[in-house]
Amino acid sequence: MKKLINAPDAVLADSLKGVAAAHPELNVDHTNRIIYRGNPTRAGKVAVISGGGSGHEPLHGGYVGLGMLDAAIAGEVFTSPTPDQIQEATRVVDSGAGVLHIVKNYTGDVMNFEMAAELADADTGVTVATVVVDDDVAVEDSTYTAGRRGVGLTVLLEKIVGAAAEEGRDLADVEALANRVNESGRSMGMALTSCTVPAAGRPTFDLPDDMMEIGVGIHGEPGRHRVPLAPAASIAQQLVDPVLADLDFTGGPVIAMLNGMGGSPLIELYLMYGEVAALLEKAGVTVARTLVGDYITSLDMAGCSLTLLRADDELLRLWDAPVNTAGLRWGV
Amino acid sequence: MKKLINAPDAVLADSLKGVAAAHPELNVDHTNRIIYRGNPTRAGKVAVISGGGSGHEPLHGGYVGLGMLDAAIAGEVFTSPTPDQIQEATRVVDSGAGVLHIVKNYTGDVMNFEMAAELADADTGVTVATVVVDDDVAVEDSTYTAGRRGVGLTVLLEKIVGAAAEEGRDLADVEALANRVNESGRSMGMALTSCTVPAAGRPTFDLPDDMMEIGVGIHGEPGRHRVPLAPAASIAQQLVDPVLADLDFTGGPVIAMLNGMGGSPLIELYLMYGEVAALLEKAGVTVARTLVGDYITSLDMAGCSLTLLRADDELLRLWDAPVNTAGLRWGV
Repeated sequence: MKKLINAPDAVLADSLKGVAAAHPELNVDHTNRIIYRGNPTRAGKVAVISGGGSGHEPLHGGYVGLGMLDAAIAGEVFTSPTPDQIQEATRVVDSGAGVLHIVKNYTGDVMNFEMAAELADADTGVTVATVVVDDDVAVEDSTYTAGRRGVGLTVLLEKIVGAAAEEGRDLADVEALANRVNESGRSMGMALTSCTVPAAGRPTFDLPDDMMEIGVGIHGEPGRHRVPLAPAASIAQQLVDPVLADLDFTGGPVIAMLNGMGGSPLIELYLMYGEVAALLEKAGVTVARTLVGDYITSLDMAGCSLTLLRADDELLRLWDAPVNTAGLRWGV
Repeated sequence: MKKLINAPDAVLADSLKGVAAAHPELNVDHTNRIIYRGNPTRAGKVAVISGGGSGHEPLHGGYVGLGMLDAAIAGEVFTSPTPDQIQEATRVVDSGAGVLHIVKNYTGDVMNFEMAAELADADTGVTVATVVVDDDVAVEDSTYTAGRRGVGLTVLLEKIVGAAAEEGRDLADVEALANRVNESGRSMGMALTSCTVPAAGRPTFDLPDDMMEIGVGIHGEPGRHRVPLAPAASIAQQLVDPVLADLDFTGGPVIAMLNGMGGSPLIELYLMYGEVAALLEKAGVTVARTLVGDYITSLDMAGCSLTLLRADDELLRLWDAPVNTAGLRWGV
């Protein structure tokens, strides 16, 4: 295992030190492993928080800031944060207008966020609403999930819902919007290589040199099938087809994200997006906004995922609204 | 070789298709492999262009846009663009105020940009000034270079000089500023793994599982020495020491970049920055601005580099000025 780390069990704590050093505009609670905005939530603003296992950076800590998250809770690598951590973040960010929890659909995350929401209500009277993101069309019920997994759409949802909260909408409105975004987006991923979890010290799965995994999850969970390595055009087809088969993306503007899994260089991600864009055009899908790069990763896995979101004027306006985070920044 | 490509000889052309599809705000000349801003250079503005071999994305194409480059010329992977390509870009971007060429110090690049500058002057009367970036403290005279290599400082220089050109400064001013930035910055890199050039199909160099390369170049050129794998704290020391030994970074604000080589995930880069920041603080270096992420890469190489730039109020102001590119974006 070749990694830029001190010790496998210190990766998260050490990485948070770097986040704190690089981003004086954020507050890092090293004990509870929570990244907050530098300023407390302003009175009347719904707070939006998310979290999950680490190893998907810049998700979620890289999306804390104006126009996006109020806080991100970091679990150990590929491990849900605990209810205590989540409850603490919920308590700190609440300004009285309630807190939205954005949860990727993994069994551990769903359970721990639910418990935290109950504790927050019981202990401190904080009203919590929850959206569970489940956009991955690859599989129903996977290694760590009942139902579909929550993957790339989480990034787009955090941006759009964060912008709505920034506008001062109330918790019910923000929750409804989050559910609408979740229902309007789909993702599909693939891997050329496994990732290596530091604490494990060896690749999560074996993938022969001439094979790739289609429909892989962001923790290296098995996908739909293993197939021989293929040209980018064929890989693009194998991502686009299941996404378009699952939801109609024609008839309105679409936000598209071609995401890198962490180990694939940007020149390959742009190349993949070129192939995807050609297929989408052929299918009558109009892409209005695009992200290409590493936005939700799986440590050092080589591979990529495609996320599409059916948008409309309102969602595009919220997408374009100012955002000031380490991972997404514009308009400020 | 596991890559998201169609064919080794089509990587650059196919990737530029993706850039064009993802960035309607840019103009891509697919024949000459040049990325331009969507709008022509405004009258009286010095144009700033750069280029070099591909494989270092987001450098240089990802830095084309308001407040940074007017155009970027892409050579094949790790291969200088030709004088013809560079001359064409120079001709197109000139609005009468002259063109600054930003060239990383590699023999092929220096030669081809020089030839292009002469051709531009002779054929079309365009005045060209050139800055050759040579910030890498690792080695004097390397595989592809006479003198020091040009690496990470190029990113910072393109940002700062691009902002100065945007303010309407004349060519002599912009050139002087570029030289001042070059003299004020230093870099040092390291690799955990080799990169694999698509056309070669196998790793550029062999690096045993228990070794790392200190002082590596951005094409996988040999560095200072190979040493056993070490904890991040030791790696940070091996990057910080030679940089601080080469130039005094105390006594004023510094801009720091902890750059990923392409194959190292962000959680490791933040971890490395945490170690670097602690060493800089101990050495009395005050970091005023920070970048952590993949800004100048070597395809899929795992590893990182450190760049420090001595700044002052003027350089910080130019750093903070609005920039609207795929790779760096703020203030707009």
